[in-house]
Amino acid sequence: MIEGKINNINLQKVYYGMVGGGESSFIGDVHRKAAAFDRKCIIAAGCFSRDYNNSLRTAQSLDISPDRVYKNYLEMAEKESKRSDKIDFVTIVTPNNSHFEIAKTFLNNGINVVCDKPLVTDLDKAYELKKIANEKDLLFCVTYSYSKYSMVKEAKEIIKRGDIGEIKLILAEYLQDWLAEPIEKEGQKQASWRTDPNQSGISNCVGDIGTHIEHTVSYITGLKIKSLCANLENIGDNRSLDTNAQILVKFDNGASGVYTVSQVAIGYQNGLKIRVFGTKGSIEWEQENPECLAVSIINEPKKILKKGLNYLSNASLELSRVPSGHPEGYYEAFANMYSVFADAILYKKSGNTIKAFDFPNIDDGISGVKFIEKCVESSNSGSVWVNF
Amino acid sequence: MIEGKINNINLQKVYYGMVGGGESSFIGDVHRKAAAFDRKCIIAAGCFSRDYNNSLRTAQSLDISPDRVYKNYLEMAEKESKRSDKIDFVTIVTPNNSHFEIAKTFLNNGINVVCDKPLVTDLDKAYELKKIANEKDLLFCVTYSYSKYSMVKEAKEIIKRGDIGEIKLILAEYLQDWLAEPIEKEGQKQASWRTDPNQSGISNCVGDIGTHIEHTVSYITGLKIKSLCANLENIGDNRSLDTNAQILVKFDNGASGVYTVSQVAIGYQNGLKIRVFGTKGSIEWEQENPECLAVSIINEPKKILKKGLNYLSNASLELSRVPSGHPEGYYEAFANMYSVFADAILYKKSGNTIKAFDFPNIDDGISGVKFIEKCVESSNSGSVWVNF
Amino acid sequence: MIEGKINNINLQKVYYGMVGGGESSFIGDVHRKAAAFDRKCIIAAGCFSRDYNNSLRTAQSLDISPDRVYKNYLEMAEKESKRSDKIDFVTIVTPNNSHFEIAKTFLNNGINVVCDKPLVTDLDKAYELKKIANEKDLLFCVTYSYSKYSMVKEAKEIIKRGDIGEIKLILAEYLQDWLAEPIEKEGQKQASWRTDPNQSGISNCVGDIGTHIEHTVSYITGLKIKSLCANLENIGDNRSLDTNAQILVKFDNGASGVYTVSQVAIGYQNGLKIRVFGTKGSIEWEQENPECLAVSIINEPKKILKKGLNYLSNASLELSRVPSGHPEGYYEAFANMYSVFADAILYKKSGNTIKAFDFPNIDDGISGVKFIEKCVESSNSGSVWVNF
Amino acid sequence: MIEGKINNINLQKVYYGMVGGGESSFIGDVHRKAAAFDRKCIIAAGCFSRDYNNSLRTAQSLDISPDRVYKNYLEMAEKESKRSDKIDFVTIVTPNNSHFEIAKTFLNNGINVVCDKPLVTDLDKAYELKKIANEKDLLFCVTYSYSKYSMVKEAKEIIKRGDIGEIKLILAEYLQDWLAEPIEKEGQKQASWRTDPNQSGISNCVGDIGTHIEHTVSYITGLKIKSLCANLENIGDNRSLDTNAQILVKFDNGASGVYTVSQVAIGYQNGLKIRVFGTKGSIEWEQENPECLAVSIINEPKKILKKGLNYLSNASLELSRVPSGHPEGYYEAFANMYSVFADAILYKKSGNTIKAFDFPNIDDGISGVKFIEKCVESSNSGSVWVNF
Repeated sequence: MIEGKINNINLQKVYYGMVGGGESSFIGDVHRKAAAFDRKCIIAAGCFSRDYNNSLRTAQSLDISPDRVYKNYLEMAEKESKRSDKIDFVTIVTPNNSHFEIAKTFLNNGINVVCDKPLVTDLDKAYELKKIANEKDLLFCVTYSYSKYSMVKEAKEIIKRGDIGEIKLILAEYLQDWLAEPIEKEGQKQASWRTDPNQSGISNCVGDIGTHIEHTVSYITGLKIKSLCANLENIGDNRSLDTNAQILVKFDNGASGVYTVSQVAIGYQNGLKIRVFGTKGSIEWEQENPECLAVSIINEPKKILKKGLNYLSNASLELSRVPSGHPEGYYEAFANMYSVFADAILYKKSGNTIKAFDFPNIDDGISGVKFIEKCVESSNSGSVWVNF
Repeated sequence: MIEGKINNINLQKVYYGMVGGGESSFIGDVHRKAAAFDRKCIIAAGCFSRDYNNSLRTAQSLDISPDRVYKNYLEMAEKESKRSDKIDFVTIVTPNNSHFEIAKTFLNNGINVVCDKPLVTDLDKAYELKKIANEKDLLFCVTYSYSKYSMVKEAKEIIKRGDIGEIKLILAEYLQDWLAEPIEKEGQKQASWRTDPNQSGISNCVGDIGTHIEHTVSYITGLKIKSLCANLENIGDNRSLDTNAQILVKFDNGASGVYTVSQVAIGYQNGLKIRVFGTKGSIEWEQENPECLAVSIINEPKKILKKGLNYLSNASLELSRVPSGHPEGYYEAFANMYSVFADAILYKKSGNTIKAFDFPNIDDGISGVKFIEKCVESSNSGSVWVNF
Repeated sequence: MIEGKINNINLQKVYYGMVGGGESSFIGDVHRKAAAFDRKCIIAAGCFSRDYNNSLRTAQSLDISPDRVYKNYLEMAEKESKRSDKIDFVTIVTPNNSHFEIAKTFLNNGINVVCDKPLVTDLDKAYELKKIANEKDLLFCVTYSYSKYSMVKEAKEIIKRGDIGEIKLILAEYLQDWLAEPIEKEGQKQASWRTDPNQSGISNCVGDIGTHIEHTVSYITGLKIKSLCANLENIGDNRSLDTNAQILVKFDNGASGVYTVSQVAIGYQNGLKIRVFGTKGSIEWEQENPECLAVSIINEPKKILKKGLNYLSNASLELSRVPSGHPEGYYEAFANMYSVFADAILYKKSGNTIKAFDFPNIDDGISGVKFIEKCVESSNSGSVWVNF
Repeated sequence: MIEGKINNINLQKVYYGMVGGGESSFIGDVHRKAAAFDRKCIIAAGCFSRDYNNSLRTAQSLDISPDRVYKNYLEMAEKESKRSDKIDFVTIVTPNNSHFEIAKTFLNNGINVVCDKPLVTDLDKAYELKKIANEKDLLFCVTYSYSKYSMVKEAKEIIKRGDIGEIKLILAEYLQDWLAEPIEKEGQKQASWRTDPNQSGISNCVGDIGTHIEHTVSYITGLKIKSLCANLENIGDNRSLDTNAQILVKFDNGASGVYTVSQVAIGYQNGLKIRVFGTKGSIEWEQENPECLAVSIINEPKKILKKGLNYLSNASLELSRVPSGHPEGYYEAFANMYSVFADAILYKKSGNTIKAFDFPNIDDGISGVKFIEKCVESSNSGSVWVNF
């Protein structure tokens, strides 16, 4: 068995707190498992729920000292910022509509931020967060974890190297079916808040999964959207937010794209698939089979690249821990993001300032918010083209 | 080995002639092999080339009597129509721009027609052909052969039965890469005429393969396009016709669709893929793997249906000759079309008039021409929505 | 659309007759469609059934003159051999137990033979046929049609070129499920004769499909079996012949192999799959997806080769008619066999004698019969190793 | 997004130590990540290397108190057993040849054991460990982690329920290519010890990966091997242990099986694939695509079951944390094993004794050692059948 490439012995740690993620939370636990994976990030504080007892129980299970469990995020930001052993960063895993105030508060208290996507519910707030982060010289990570799969990195390297030539066409889809039935009426928690404009903002489907396409494509290709034409649909009984959308895109280099997103596409669970076609070749990647990358070069047979094999770039090999054929998945990609973010914090704490670390940052967050707004604007105007 | 379902002993024959399809023709030979497959259709006359010697040699190889080899299609239509053993139908396999005059001539001489798609290069001519065929009470087949794959029929049956509920979303793509390089400049014959507006008409890619999507989707679902928004692109060195297009579609029942077509999508050869999503389930079919059909019903595991197995409908079983697992492909689908068309002719010759035979007919041909026109209109107007 | 490579204009024809293949026959029709495919072979005579009226009706549907329909094969061989326009070859599509007498009769009357596999039911008879064919200088084709798939040929070329190095391991399986239920008791014709030792000989499953593995592996690799160890099983209610077998194999070059065959492997229809591993790489091919060939070279990504693309060898390109992505299947492979056999006959008729034509011949037939005998011998002796 | 099923709030912890797994170890880190995954197991002590400084550095990175870092396992077992906060179990991740002495020592000191597979290098020692564990009433887990994939559990449930009827045929393979080149000569650590009989025992390939087949098949089906016939081969330059093997198997219920294992099968990385065929249906699972399970029931379409969906059994749903479509892989299966083992320890510590916990135990370890011995015995005797 060939060994993995990630260094497993980490002596330096970073400490973090969490807002949201209490007992009944799904995503909070994903973050904690991912952050803990490589033993670089230690959870040390939290305000996990509006229900303080939930917070206390959650903290206990995480071996967090009770004096670092807080009744609300304001108290947490303030008190943590004054501790000598204060948290290095906070992770925000609350519904979309609360991200802004929480993130702003921690930034203003001098604490780096990891925030779930979409970043905020309107673009002005996104820019404001960036402004504060810059002023305070703080790191801000927006958790587009799919760009941290090893083979997404390989795709990026291949394109950067020019292997597929100039990009001409991008086909991307993200198909799910979990909202094919009105489960929000039966109280399913995820469904309830995501279909509720008060918690999700102006979009559900485009906001939740469309932004993953927007980010991952942008990450792989480096292209910027120039204009788009979107059709958003509220499929399902009396829903007020989109569960289905088709988006035509034009990029700054002249390439065209089609983004298709759905939460009602029966037969698909988490079907993010990205295809990029250039003048010399193409790449194809699927999130549900994340360790393979299909590469076609003109007049050559299609090649199936696999995680962890020697012919890959170091950049992608560094994102795998176990040998090829030993599946790494959602948690491991998420862990890669925390690992890089922790490295960035450690690097900065050591007084360095130059190196760029490859984690999804606030500009990625801004881009996602803008994407949501432009899709909604286009669709509400009769699915016309709007400039980005 | 389970036996196939098609009756192999056919005593009654129909006779046909061909216009086009001489020595260097590719598609003419496909038609002849397909027509001969089930021994229902016998080729008996032809005008295979503007070069009479080519025609004669082609005829000789086909055991056609020299007196039924013609110098031009006018002569052929006229002389055949006067024979007591005249051909039952003519197959037209010339470039798009000549279909109209040839088809019209044979119809006016009382001869049924099989014509390659797209039918003609403008819509008025399509309606004119329909008018003549109706007046003359003649059969007209347009060779959208993909709808004669066994599992396409099964998809149609499944949807008709209501298994997937009301259709909400249709995703279809037809991706090829044979025009990724400017092979028309090196004299490749297919590339030369298809990229030439004088022979192809106003569209290359949408006309050649977009129409296959339009037809096959229409065949499977029974839905009509209400409006569309298309972006056509002439990718490739100084080309004047489209080689790439993205088309948003709205259907008469309120469903949405995305059609993506390309002749420059490196890594794809003949990638026609159709996915139809309804309120209860979905179907998925790919031309390059034609004998499988994926069916997903809500809250059930995805099923992979395979040609020739007992759980299929009789309608699809009737379209296969060999048992499941013995691949039938492009020729056999094409042969299914000729087989049904021959049955229709024999039925009509026997004096019957009532039964509907399931072959792609002139209305399908008209629909395709309209689709081309609307796509070009939309794209030329800045990719705006146009009514169908 | 890139054009296919097979020359479609054939002026010279060969004429053949058929023994077996009457109205209710499945495989007879497959042979006739395949033989007719490229218009090189014309059926001209037949004894299609012990029931003369069945023969006459079959002949009528095939446009065979009634004077060339025969009451039995003896009459047919004798009378045809005396005609000036006598058939060039006879195709024998009767149950295994009758192959020997029929083939011998036609050979003795100077007529070339195409015979279904397995060739005969014991090895002495196989050698006797070879002896007669050699003495009479006649061509003998045994219909192992799977070796005529384009990508099987490509596999052979790749191995011959040394791309995968010295062969070390061969894994081959042929899994079907059509005998998972005792359909022979319900009168299913194929099941009835194949499970009947009086018609099939000493083996059903190994004879019917195991021999396809034996031949195709031998064709691709050029290796000879040195010894084998087989376990044959009669799964199913009171069956007297095998429906399931596992066979360990050692080859003359020291390589090892595993052949697994089953007619009761639920979920598989016609799952012939062959994997060959060498010191530098491997190849993998599946009959149900015949137009792809996976090739892995050490330290390189796996490549998926597809029929009809330019990077293939001419040897495999010559076996495809339609462009890559346009599926050719079972019939087309079968047609390739008839096409090559017809070429061989035409070449010989023109007085030439040197060139080797690549069709499965009597040595392949002998090898298959020997394989059956050795598998049965090993299994009956307690699944011990026996020399080949 | 549908939520996962594993309870994420665990208040009770178990503490463990590790022998082996120092700085340059691959598998030690896998164990630690897996044990930490669900926050049930806390590492508290260790003897990670014969090099004490390596041990100390490793311990530091793991936040282990220096007084619980030991110079050798004897000291560790002795001293830990005397602490009031002693470890609940020890994990042994050293080469095969040292498992016995280490495991025996910890058992004799009253400490539960988790041990890598294969358990030991000869069968007597395996029985001895079982005897001690029983006498001391200690839990013993052998890390066959593949049986803890969610869909392996589903396969077991399906078979237990009788969905596929009586088992008749089992086809299993485990193909890798990492030893296709003699990397042990270049000092690759994994290759060095695995190809060395002094560290691996009497088998490399069968011991390392053949045992995974033996265990996983046994787990899924509940069948016991009755006899086997094995061919082991030392492919590769001057190797003294097997890198390739084919094994015919007969089971106690009369079913047959074929196990194929290789470390030199170019193109395969970690290709464990298991197919079980019964009288009513079959299942098929692949480790590299672990979240899918193909199920074929006679006369029904093949179904593709996917992790985390509602139609699955609770038994398999309990083994997934994230919704369907969010890949869980190697680490998560490993974590499932530790989670169940921790539950078993906690249950026992609370004074309970009755409940059976589903982790691979010492009987599974014994079975694996026996399997190795019988394969080697058969192969060394000329690949004859030997009773199990």
